[in-house]
Amino acid sequence: MTATEYDNDNIFAKILREELPCHKVYEDDATLAFMDIMPRADGHTLVIPKNPSRNMLDAGQDDVNAVMATVQKIAKAQMTAFEADGITIQQFNEPAGGQVVFHLHMHVIPRKDGITMRPHTGNMAENDILATHAQALINALEKNG
Amino acid sequence: MTATEYDNDNIFAKILREELPCHKVYEDDATLAFMDIMPRADGHTLVIPKNPSRNMLDAGQDDVNAVMATVQKIAKAQMTAFEADGITIQQFNEPAGGQVVFHLHMHVIPRKDGITMRPHTGNMAENDILATHAQALINALEKNG
Repeated sequence: MTATEYDNDNIFAKILREELPCHKVYEDDATLAFMDIMPRADGHTLVIPKNPSRNMLDAGQDDVNAVMATVQKIAKAQMTAFEADGITIQQFNEPAGGQVVFHLHMHVIPRKDGITMRPHTGNMAENDILATHAQALINALEKNG
Repeated sequence: MTATEYDNDNIFAKILREELPCHKVYEDDATLAFMDIMPRADGHTLVIPKNPSRNMLDAGQDDVNAVMATVQKIAKAQMTAFEADGITIQQFNEPAGGQVVFHLHMHVIPRKDGITMRPHTGNMAENDILATHAQALINALEKNG
């Protein structure tokens, strides 16, 4: 396997196959959204395509479009669910670009005025907090229709 | 004007109307790509839709899709033009999210192994350096076809 081939055993592939759990927020035919277990801010959500791709350097345009439609839904829901003042979106490609899991994913992070993002400590958030945040987003998505 | 209305006098609107100059890299019917004048890394490029929108919270899906298609073109071209090892993509929504110019834009930033992004100093890069980087990207885009 070359450095830029898709690895079918990455943790997001395992989440898609339900071999690993996640705090699911939203799902459609082409995408899945779930809570980041190491949130940089409360409500930090990941959006991934169901089709395999490593990142933006190999992803198909249809998958990117589907991901971005879900990103917009999640961003709008975060504004109300977490009374956010803004949203930071990040997407990392290859280790030099900041990528750790090699399945395309967009970070969608609710932000509040005057509060910086938490550093990457490697600490996981507590399961019940993530579940509460996921439910808040699910409720906001339902309200947005 | 409410805080979240589009301001037709933002600097990217002026660039689109050619009232302000830019180091253009790529243009199609729906999008424009040009060098960030305060690059976080050499080759840092911005991609914007030609249609007005403030950010991802109000942008139409067609505009987002067009922007992302151009983002993918730019990211691939940056890998060769700047011998990048990876790409960092950022998109900021509202001041709390990191947004400074209120016309939707994606930051596409070439990265090298072991080199962190430069901090936001507010210092502008020299014009001839930006012109050289724009030309390197234009050449790479032509090669990619």
